[in-house]
Amino acid sequence: MGIQVAFIGLGIMGEPMAKNIVKKGYSLSVFNRTAEKTLPLREAGAVAAASPKEATKGADVVILMLTDPDAVDQVLDGPQGVRAGLEAGKTIINMSTVPPSYSRNLFDRLKSGHLAAIDAPVYGSKKPAEDGALVILAGGIQAKVKEMEPLLLTMGKKVVYCGEAGQGSSMKMVVNLLLSIMATGLAEAVNLGQKCGLSTETMLETILSGPTHCPLFEFKKPMLISDNYGAQFALKNMTKDLRFILQTADEAGAAVPAAHVVFQLYRAAMGRGLSDKDYAAVKKVIEAMSDPNSVP
Amino acid sequence: MGIQVAFIGLGIMGEPMAKNIVKKGYSLSVFNRTAEKTLPLREAGAVAAASPKEATKGADVVILMLTDPDAVDQVLDGPQGVRAGLEAGKTIINMSTVPPSYSRNLFDRLKSGHLAAIDAPVYGSKKPAEDGALVILAGGIQAKVKEMEPLLLTMGKKVVYCGEAGQGSSMKMVVNLLLSIMATGLAEAVNLGQKCGLSTETMLETILSGPTHCPLFEFKKPMLISDNYGAQFALKNMTKDLRFILQTADEAGAAVPAAHVVFQLYRAAMGRGLSDKDYAAVKKVIEAMSDPNSVP
Amino acid sequence: MGIQVAFIGLGIMGEPMAKNIVKKGYSLSVFNRTAEKTLPLREAGAVAAASPKEATKGADVVILMLTDPDAVDQVLDGPQGVRAGLEAGKTIINMSTVPPSYSRNLFDRLKSGHLAAIDAPVYGSKKPAEDGALVILAGGIQAKVKEMEPLLLTMGKKVVYCGEAGQGSSMKMVVNLLLSIMATGLAEAVNLGQKCGLSTETMLETILSGPTHCPLFEFKKPMLISDNYGAQFALKNMTKDLRFILQTADEAGAAVPAAHVVFQLYRAAMGRGLSDKDYAAVKKVIEAMSDPNSVP
Amino acid sequence: MGIQVAFIGLGIMGEPMAKNIVKKGYSLSVFNRTAEKTLPLREAGAVAAASPKEATKGADVVILMLTDPDAVDQVLDGPQGVRAGLEAGKTIINMSTVPPSYSRNLFDRLKSGHLAAIDAPVYGSKKPAEDGALVILAGGIQAKVKEMEPLLLTMGKKVVYCGEAGQGSSMKMVVNLLLSIMATGLAEAVNLGQKCGLSTETMLETILSGPTHCPLFEFKKPMLISDNYGAQFALKNMTKDLRFILQTADEAGAAVPAAHVVFQLYRAAMGRGLSDKDYAAVKKVIEAMSDPNSVP
Repeated sequence: MGIQVAFIGLGIMGEPMAKNIVKKGYSLSVFNRTAEKTLPLREAGAVAAASPKEATKGADVVILMLTDPDAVDQVLDGPQGVRAGLEAGKTIINMSTVPPSYSRNLFDRLKSGHLAAIDAPVYGSKKPAEDGALVILAGGIQAKVKEMEPLLLTMGKKVVYCGEAGQGSSMKMVVNLLLSIMATGLAEAVNLGQKCGLSTETMLETILSGPTHCPLFEFKKPMLISDNYGAQFALKNMTKDLRFILQTADEAGAAVPAAHVVFQLYRAAMGRGLSDKDYAAVKKVIEAMSDPNSVP
Repeated sequence: MGIQVAFIGLGIMGEPMAKNIVKKGYSLSVFNRTAEKTLPLREAGAVAAASPKEATKGADVVILMLTDPDAVDQVLDGPQGVRAGLEAGKTIINMSTVPPSYSRNLFDRLKSGHLAAIDAPVYGSKKPAEDGALVILAGGIQAKVKEMEPLLLTMGKKVVYCGEAGQGSSMKMVVNLLLSIMATGLAEAVNLGQKCGLSTETMLETILSGPTHCPLFEFKKPMLISDNYGAQFALKNMTKDLRFILQTADEAGAAVPAAHVVFQLYRAAMGRGLSDKDYAAVKKVIEAMSDPNSVP
Repeated sequence: MGIQVAFIGLGIMGEPMAKNIVKKGYSLSVFNRTAEKTLPLREAGAVAAASPKEATKGADVVILMLTDPDAVDQVLDGPQGVRAGLEAGKTIINMSTVPPSYSRNLFDRLKSGHLAAIDAPVYGSKKPAEDGALVILAGGIQAKVKEMEPLLLTMGKKVVYCGEAGQGSSMKMVVNLLLSIMATGLAEAVNLGQKCGLSTETMLETILSGPTHCPLFEFKKPMLISDNYGAQFALKNMTKDLRFILQTADEAGAAVPAAHVVFQLYRAAMGRGLSDKDYAAVKKVIEAMSDPNSVP
Repeated sequence: MGIQVAFIGLGIMGEPMAKNIVKKGYSLSVFNRTAEKTLPLREAGAVAAASPKEATKGADVVILMLTDPDAVDQVLDGPQGVRAGLEAGKTIINMSTVPPSYSRNLFDRLKSGHLAAIDAPVYGSKKPAEDGALVILAGGIQAKVKEMEPLLLTMGKKVVYCGEAGQGSSMKMVVNLLLSIMATGLAEAVNLGQKCGLSTETMLETILSGPTHCPLFEFKKPMLISDNYGAQFALKNMTKDLRFILQTADEAGAAVPAAHVVFQLYRAAMGRGLSDKDYAAVKKVIEAMSDPNSVP
């Protein structure tokens, strides 16, 4: 634990993840664009830096938990960026959700700068992040992933080694595609039942007592019953991820007929002002496409 | 248990369901179009009849577990049919998967013949049928469903009262819609990962360690890993159910954009000779629509 | 022209079609459920009957131009129906849009009653019906179609012999599928352009000056420019036809991925109160699914 | 005509377009990556240059007809690029199909280099290019488009002014979206008819005698009848354009449900080795998704 860690990006996910690192005794410096968000981390024992460069200075490992490829590029490059502060031989773990092609490219760019890169997006949302119970999807050189495992396990219950650089990101595409289709399926099924005159409570009770019983639907159950979609994972972020998924599928030559439909529904949801709601709010779009006058 | 029960339709689901009735001590007569299928029931203590009419004679309750509305009509009507053998005041429990509109209509037809009707399709496949662990989705007059509950609980772990006549069938549309979308989502996600070069085992391990962990995906895991789809629930039956779902959604004015895509994929799967495979075999269609030459 | 003709169904299409028959000197009796609609025909020289049976009495040929299979069945059967009035050896030309399977079945039913049947739906809407310029899509015994050609050509500019019984209906499925996809494509393209800030007039001018120049888009041009969709062909009827098309495709094993999307859009349009508008009004649904806040 | 013109990109479209410029008496220098393709132009009177820079030297107007944004960037930038050869105050007309956002950005980049930019993609394929009968979709400063109109009319029959920079590209997105949906609709309708047992010839004859009569379907008619898809416009290029269309629709917040389906079909067609066929070959994919065993 003599390792010095820098953590950049203290959003809904990043904050609890960084906290878990500090709690386990690592020496941690943090940076966030909006500085006040560093307060909880400072209280927990981390040092707040004024720039990515400053956060990174002297660090052995830099962890990035940012919105998208552009955000990662901005944090890495430039005079105040990570690369300006980091010595050769160090490691960057990018836990942001980005397309696999971006991760492969980043690996090569960093390698040519004598830095190691791991793509390690996480499977799980806010609650497992707080509990240190995320599933971490890692791509890169296997020995390097192994070396970082103790650090990663401060944030997660499990590290899945997915393959070479980019494969952590690939796995993230796979699970987010599944999540978005399942959330849409749940919404479509529940809306059908409502139009048929079934009780939403009874539907969720049924769905959760058969082979479709899963944590995801347990999370979404109160949202569908209350018709109130406080964000666990914001719809705009799922929409962004679906963009990456469609791009990845196009590059990989994989047919994704359901993903295209789901993307259109999420994109329409954003147009209806649901961007900051939970992605289960896709239900509102399916409802709006339905016949308001039909009687069961 | 002085109740006399008739059970018609001893298919993959019907046979274990009927067996559980007899095991619990009910007096049971059975009928199946292919007579040899009555053998295991006779061994278990049931009496085999030569026609629906004969099976029904003297029965208090008649249970139907048949393929589709046409099969139900054929068993009910005609000189050797159920209605020719059944006395006024008795009850017919239709556990077949049929559209809600058919169930409502059947209820009215039987009512005018002084018979009570319950629509009670089941949620769960072969294994829970054997274990008496089905979830039974009941529609009809609530007092009548209550009265039949002890009998129904010989076959299932739970009876969900869904509402008036037809609402059991409505609930079945809801859960089968969800199942078909989830199976397609799993297939699409796994195929994407394969095209990206991920290991199928690792994908399933990941999916089953996060919020998408559910019995359904556990059942399908060995199928996707072995690329071998022995039927737990035949693809042709899911395709038939999707036809009912699309019809029900059209009547109810419910938008079902994903269901339309899923139906097209299942219909295409039938064209590829996958009718008798498990419905998880929709994976083969998504694969065939993908680019065989792409390299991860 | 010694032929005695009966015409049943004087809707938007039926009225001008029947008028063209009478104008060419045929002796014509007509029936319509709403009796006042027979007035223009009586003024043109036709005789109005009180029932299908009465209209049919003494007729050599009976033409049906009705909404759907149920309407055809109601007119044919029963004590006041066509079949009660028609002698053996006569011919029924069903010009209603129905599924091919219905037409094949009708042919067999009538044949066993010693009546000849032709399925002869029309390609073209109100204006060509008035001008006697319809394209008539005929299925049945070829010699019989040939025999009826002079009569059919009073209503149309061309008779296309499509094959045996049902194939006229099949061809109608083909052209209506194409029409519905093209109308949706036009709506989707124009909506995209509007969101990009293009002028609707300029778009239509462009579309009509290239390889996409067609009468259909000329008909729809003023609708899209004025955003006002007076029905030339009602959206609810196109929706009904799409139902027949999906059913026919399912029976024939033909993949129809675009048709499924188009059907969902039309069904949603009906839910928005657009049933009686022209089917080009599907534009309103695509618009409603778009982002109202986006700026070009 | 004292204007000196440079033309870069002599592909299927570029070659006949450049020829028409030279034929009308303009002084023309040309560049193409594969040098031998300049031969027909040299024979027609043009001068072949060794680099974009050389071609551009002394030119008043530079016309680009290239595959995609990357190709445009490569030709413009670098030591041998267009911008290295072009004097301030000159005009670049980009006739390549690119996303509107790229065109807007290019306009700004060139403006800051004191160059004028017009985006002017064309509507029409090889034959109208040879005949000088293209429809030219122009975006940019209106006076500048007016000034270039005589030059543009050597290649086309009509210049449609679509609006400010990027709007020519927007219009191109609109017409190509419509073309791709119509080609898919034709393929889906013809495949349905074939599965129903109709003759392909009779279908095309019918389609071309009604409101769907258009040059596009006349071009595709022999392809569908012969099942042989020699490229007038290559499927891979339409797939690329659909990528731009989906991206543009996403940015503009326009719902494009049919475009998503069509893109998936074209992407699948590329996986089946149809990249260099005409885009009407999407028919082969729809066929492959259909049931080979169904009997009409």
